[in-house]
Amino acid sequence: MHTIADFCVIPMGVTASVSQYIAECQRVIEKSGLAYSMHSYGTNVEGEWDDVCRVMKECHEAVHAMGCPRVSTSVRIGTRTDKVGQTMQDKVNVVHEILAKDAK
Amino acid sequence: MHTIADFCVIPMGVTASVSQYIAECQRVIEKSGLAYSMHSYGTNVEGEWDDVCRVMKECHEAVHAMGCPRVSTSVRIGTRTDKVGQTMQDKVNVVHEILAKDAK
Amino acid sequence: MHTIADFCVIPMGVTASVSQYIAECQRVIEKSGLAYSMHSYGTNVEGEWDDVCRVMKECHEAVHAMGCPRVSTSVRIGTRTDKVGQTMQDKVNVVHEILAKDAK
Amino acid sequence: MHTIADFCVIPMGVTASVSQYIAECQRVIEKSGLAYSMHSYGTNVEGEWDDVCRVMKECHEAVHAMGCPRVSTSVRIGTRTDKVGQTMQDKVNVVHEILAKDAK
Repeated sequence: MHTIADFCVIPMGVTASVSQYIAECQRVIEKSGLAYSMHSYGTNVEGEWDDVCRVMKECHEAVHAMGCPRVSTSVRIGTRTDKVGQTMQDKVNVVHEILAKDAK
Repeated sequence: MHTIADFCVIPMGVTASVSQYIAECQRVIEKSGLAYSMHSYGTNVEGEWDDVCRVMKECHEAVHAMGCPRVSTSVRIGTRTDKVGQTMQDKVNVVHEILAKDAK
Repeated sequence: MHTIADFCVIPMGVTASVSQYIAECQRVIEKSGLAYSMHSYGTNVEGEWDDVCRVMKECHEAVHAMGCPRVSTSVRIGTRTDKVGQTMQDKVNVVHEILAKDAK
Repeated sequence: MHTIADFCVIPMGVTASVSQYIAECQRVIEKSGLAYSMHSYGTNVEGEWDDVCRVMKECHEAVHAMGCPRVSTSVRIGTRTDKVGQTMQDKVNVVHEILAKDAK
């Protein structure tokens, strides 16, 4: 089952600045080969359900391996049967197309 | 990796009242054998990471099988290496114990 | 606008065990007078949109006041125009009623 | 209290394709004057806590006004006292800077 997801990994029990942990998660996601895009409060990722869940697990494992005792992740994950093959970019494009007409 | 999670399945493209879909998800979760507890805006579930992710996938599959074209799920998922064996109930209990002292 | 919400306050930059902070949030919510119910990964709360957002802000303020430098909260918040007056308990009850018929 | 948030508005009880509703939310956010950035599974927004909560409420009101009977929104909202003035872009930049060193 294909899915588009967005997840935000929150390392707990460490310093308030967690960019080193987030950078490590980006390396993990990059290595997975999945399409992804980081934003200011999480990362969009796209692929098979099992692959997406595995990469999130690998992020937890990587953050724990850096010495972080606790990780809490917030996830949005979506599937649809009506639009097979819709990509992350398609979702953004269709909204931009609607808004582009406003300017005219 | 053991995890405690909380997820809220949102069926889209169907009626606004989605209790039939949520009930079906409860049946799916019950069948999984995982410890779980439904509340007013989601369900707590506890178990191995892969099992928790599989039951969420099965919920999506079950809701799609009922004819729902789109499902978006909001998830919180946590792991910790400092308290192995902590259960969902432990998390609630420790807060209640602190609050119980307030009354004295 | 009436809303039912669920939120999970995550203190960052402090110890991995955050029950003291969560207990303080429960005191803040209790003081608000809003209907609420804590579970293992958050707290359900019900009321006017502005009141719900204010109590979440007060939780952040209270956790910061305890010396926590960073707080990240995960929220689900819902409104509906078709079922005015639906409570948190109503949402759970309707699912349980459906499931109760399974046993027969 | 300054906050960086990310929210994803989910219209329920309407068609599975909700881009018209999301476009309307983008108009609402644009009108608010807050800094924001849409991605494939939500929108980052930055500003005072009350302003951010108000714009999310206005999104719900706007979606209901289009005839949608139910809206469920998933939110991440963060505050910090250690880095006053940190922007959405700062958060992304610091991670990119760490990753840029990997390539060397």
